[in-house]
Amino acid sequence: MATAPAPVETTAPHPEASPASSPGSLFQLLRDGRPRTRAELVSASGLARSTVASRLEDLLGVGLVVPTGEASSSGGRPAVTFVFDPSRRVVVSVDLGVSHAHVAITDLANSVLAEDLQDLDIADGPEPVLDLVTRTTLALLEEAGRSLDDVAGTGIGLPGPVEFSTGRPVSPPVMPGWDRFDVPGHLARTLPGPVLVDNDVNIMALGEHAERYRDLSDLVFVKVASGIGAGIISGGTLQRGAQGAAGDLGHVAVPDGNQTLCTCGNHGCLEAVASGAAVARRLREGGAEVHDQADVVALVRAGDTTASQAVRDAGRDIGSVLAGVVSLLNPSVIVLGGRISAVGEQLLAGIRESVYRRSLPLGTHHLRIVSSVSGARAGIVGASVLVTDTLLAPAGVDAAVAARG
Amino acid sequence: MATAPAPVETTAPHPEASPASSPGSLFQLLRDGRPRTRAELVSASGLARSTVASRLEDLLGVGLVVPTGEASSSGGRPAVTFVFDPSRRVVVSVDLGVSHAHVAITDLANSVLAEDLQDLDIADGPEPVLDLVTRTTLALLEEAGRSLDDVAGTGIGLPGPVEFSTGRPVSPPVMPGWDRFDVPGHLARTLPGPVLVDNDVNIMALGEHAERYRDLSDLVFVKVASGIGAGIISGGTLQRGAQGAAGDLGHVAVPDGNQTLCTCGNHGCLEAVASGAAVARRLREGGAEVHDQADVVALVRAGDTTASQAVRDAGRDIGSVLAGVVSLLNPSVIVLGGRISAVGEQLLAGIRESVYRRSLPLGTHHLRIVSSVSGARAGIVGASVLVTDTLLAPAGVDAAVAARG
Repeated sequence: MATAPAPVETTAPHPEASPASSPGSLFQLLRDGRPRTRAELVSASGLARSTVASRLEDLLGVGLVVPTGEASSSGGRPAVTFVFDPSRRVVVSVDLGVSHAHVAITDLANSVLAEDLQDLDIADGPEPVLDLVTRTTLALLEEAGRSLDDVAGTGIGLPGPVEFSTGRPVSPPVMPGWDRFDVPGHLARTLPGPVLVDNDVNIMALGEHAERYRDLSDLVFVKVASGIGAGIISGGTLQRGAQGAAGDLGHVAVPDGNQTLCTCGNHGCLEAVASGAAVARRLREGGAEVHDQADVVALVRAGDTTASQAVRDAGRDIGSVLAGVVSLLNPSVIVLGGRISAVGEQLLAGIRESVYRRSLPLGTHHLRIVSSVSGARAGIVGASVLVTDTLLAPAGVDAAVAARG
Repeated sequence: MATAPAPVETTAPHPEASPASSPGSLFQLLRDGRPRTRAELVSASGLARSTVASRLEDLLGVGLVVPTGEASSSGGRPAVTFVFDPSRRVVVSVDLGVSHAHVAITDLANSVLAEDLQDLDIADGPEPVLDLVTRTTLALLEEAGRSLDDVAGTGIGLPGPVEFSTGRPVSPPVMPGWDRFDVPGHLARTLPGPVLVDNDVNIMALGEHAERYRDLSDLVFVKVASGIGAGIISGGTLQRGAQGAAGDLGHVAVPDGNQTLCTCGNHGCLEAVASGAAVARRLREGGAEVHDQADVVALVRAGDTTASQAVRDAGRDIGSVLAGVVSLLNPSVIVLGGRISAVGEQLLAGIRESVYRRSLPLGTHHLRIVSSVSGARAGIVGASVLVTDTLLAPAGVDAAVAARG
């Protein structure tokens, strides 16, 4: 018998906490929505027939899986098939902006069942805003013919930095009164299931990726509105960084940009020179009647050349910073969203000009720089993805089975 | 019986190609190097006792696992335990620089068994250089008392961009004759097993992470030598980007940097203003007797204030770009390596100054900016990790079992 070698440390990720024979692990085989027979599940999982039968009972019990039609058979008794049923439970999906609340009821496949978009002022503070979200949720559930009992969880995007592990905003500059507020704790008074909170740009990146770029592993979503931020998907995974602060594009210095003072105290940050608010300010300083980014969009649409030029200049500055992002992350696609992207062509032209001028050929050869196609949907779909990616993962399904007892 | 819902698309990653009952999946439970009994493996895997026994036979057959001492028992016949044996096979781990070849024989736990560091000129071209690597490998195998039959695979880092999927260099600026050369094909004439090729900075990041920062998910390794590049680990995974071009820090524009023309055709790239070569050139232009970065290091060590000042200025420029990296990726640690980091204190001081001045508090509160502790070892350890992470993953182990028949 050999002597035991010393324990080995490796860089392997820890094995999935859920054992291979758990209901959650078996469920992954069904997650693509294709019906499968017991025999197919036994073959694909390598588990014993009795184990598969027992785990299927668990999944049927929590309603994630339903028996369905009969598989074509080469004779004898037709085999029953089983399929993921995304309609059994729903998700409350919320995208909160500085001045809007987009609330939706989605199913476990992230399809929207009912939705509502209304104005609000995030500066009203967390309790009034979250209570509005709750009231809207209850109305939408009724509209969709569902009840609170159907709610599996809530996903919510906020317009500021969020500590993802606790769901608390961290010194959000445009959200007075929200710093360190316990968003999950407040919503959980009414809404059952986990409450996951993230930065609004991160959920937009998740939504755009899920809706249109599922086959791509490297996507950067850039939101240009009153502020500027990015959601980064690398290697197929949303990257939040060590403290959840990743994607803070707005405070990257613009190479050779003007040295405007930023709200953060530094000079020349991208947000200070190229956000919707910055463009509006510049036009105002030039004598135009411009109050905010909505006025900028209106002027560009009306054919105002000064405004168009200002937006294009902003695009060039954004592109200068994105050229660095391209060198660092080598994404397949950069998606532009946010309110100012309503005048996307001018902005895109400026961005493309800078990115292609500054980046090396290997990084830009296959790069697409495009406007968001999901638009306002990106936020709510992403909020839904945030929840379903957790609930439908092996550990999430196992927890649901355990909770049912 | 319910009607089948329409097939669902989700963002879930595809289930592991290896079924839960495969030998490779079972092996993951043993990968931490702790001995386990059959009963423990049955319990942890959820597999049937007969399946575990059969898979253990497979793993014993390929030598990845050995039976070892007996577990303490509460009476009755002591139970045999099984443990990962990282010594059975070896890896050829190679770090090629512009002017050096570092070749090592490592075991499956990435420990160095024998190594050799020698000068070379990468511009000699791929065949002479790779033949030198092969000859050195054969000598090292003999020194370690191993044979070619023991080689499980080869990992190699090159000082230029590499298309990871094919192992071919792509337009590498400092490697004349290497463009699109089939590195794996050439080495596979002599060396058995897969040949994995990556950028040298990527393998340094893997090595430093494996040796010192295994518990951190977000690390950026910055190599400052004749060029400047970065290896990015986000979410615990090395990020190569869509074309393998990620981490190209050297061609990011320095905010407010001087507009020196870069070899890439742009102006003001970090590499053009702050690499070892750039610092040497600046000192030379000031009248100093400086030919390359080694002379710069010697001057700084001799206490030359002009040289120290130039290195510190380079640090400030590197820090200006890294401030943007911190905003984008929110790493826990930035590790500085490469030859110029021999004068690390001056360089680090400049880098820290710029990063802390430019970055927001959330991103820098827990950030460490440190010199590489693995030093020259980082490359060969990382080359080994590149191979073992593939060979010891479920699919890699399953392939080994299948090959044995």
